[in-house]
Amino acid sequence: MVLGLGTGSTAAFVVAKLGELLASGKLTNIVGVPTSKRTFEQANSLNIPLATLDTHPRIDLAIDGADEVDPNLDLVKGRGGALLREKMVEAASDKFVVVVDDSKLVTGLGGSGLAMPVEVVQFCWKYNLVRLQELFKEEGCEAKLRLDGDGKPYVTDNSNYIVDLYFKTPIKDSGAAGKEISAFEGVVEHGLFLDMATAVIIAGKDGVSLKSK
Amino acid sequence: MVLGLGTGSTAAFVVAKLGELLASGKLTNIVGVPTSKRTFEQANSLNIPLATLDTHPRIDLAIDGADEVDPNLDLVKGRGGALLREKMVEAASDKFVVVVDDSKLVTGLGGSGLAMPVEVVQFCWKYNLVRLQELFKEEGCEAKLRLDGDGKPYVTDNSNYIVDLYFKTPIKDSGAAGKEISAFEGVVEHGLFLDMATAVIIAGKDGVSLKSK
Repeated sequence: MVLGLGTGSTAAFVVAKLGELLASGKLTNIVGVPTSKRTFEQANSLNIPLATLDTHPRIDLAIDGADEVDPNLDLVKGRGGALLREKMVEAASDKFVVVVDDSKLVTGLGGSGLAMPVEVVQFCWKYNLVRLQELFKEEGCEAKLRLDGDGKPYVTDNSNYIVDLYFKTPIKDSGAAGKEISAFEGVVEHGLFLDMATAVIIAGKDGVSLKSK
Repeated sequence: MVLGLGTGSTAAFVVAKLGELLASGKLTNIVGVPTSKRTFEQANSLNIPLATLDTHPRIDLAIDGADEVDPNLDLVKGRGGALLREKMVEAASDKFVVVVDDSKLVTGLGGSGLAMPVEVVQFCWKYNLVRLQELFKEEGCEAKLRLDGDGKPYVTDNSNYIVDLYFKTPIKDSGAAGKEISAFEGVVEHGLFLDMATAVIIAGKDGVSLKSK
């Protein structure tokens, strides 16, 4: 089985458990496709057999966390900065299972008030930041360049920058928004993961529930 | 006047002439926005005042060469490797004038049999190469990673790779093709410049002609 390995605090638990099951022999015949350098390193240290989309262009199942989940199982992802590789791997997956706690549920994407990331080339990032903010004027959008701990621009695994979009009200039409963002030259990828999740596992105070399409 | 400065052998003549006209005082009040590091260096050495889209998001006029021009004035560009920055600058230009010789005229884009470039992130470039080749199966497409003189992958100004597409027959619907290419995760930009040129100046044996929209 070819397994897409997500990135972030939730996905790290999945990878750790996978390493444990493989080490004990309870699970065999797994090839993992990591969605970031971080996940590659974690999985590699656990001796999980690894590959990439170059050799394994079809993935049976991907498991990952998310930053927001709306009632259609559309997602915001990428606060961890790995949105491009996550989207490449998860779009190539037959099944994509998302694991979240119930604090991630929103009525509309962008509704958490936290960042919706857009990966842009470094060249003229300010120009694209202004264009992105203008695009979501109605949603009261504030666009900010993501910085690392030292106050320098955060650089993705693909040598790009991230512009984080903060909305006062949820995005009105996320399908249209995704297309409009992608149409900007210099935008590499965005954190709207639409029509991709096949199931969402939600942890709440009263236990675990499952939503699927 | 804010002037977009193209990249390539034809554009280099324009930049050289511009430097000459500014130095002689025949032209004043020009700010150039270069479309590549190469053009930046040439223009800078000629003391042409320079800016970027970050400070000058609207450009009055861009002048550049092209690799192919079809009857609708749609273009293939980017054999010089600067397609992303060219597209960003030229899409922000009120007028975009293309200068070519008549060997660049084609009846349909892709029809020259030479490369139509696609800029892709380095991550899983093979995966995207295969997907691009498959997309244009009907056009007998062969996709190749662009190499530099040393046989290593050519790296763009934005740290990406270029997959060159070679077609046996012209692209059937270039508008649809552009959208399908852009929809692939990991594709940063492509060399189809559609509905962008406002005029094309064509040099032929019998002189110079002009086509405009």
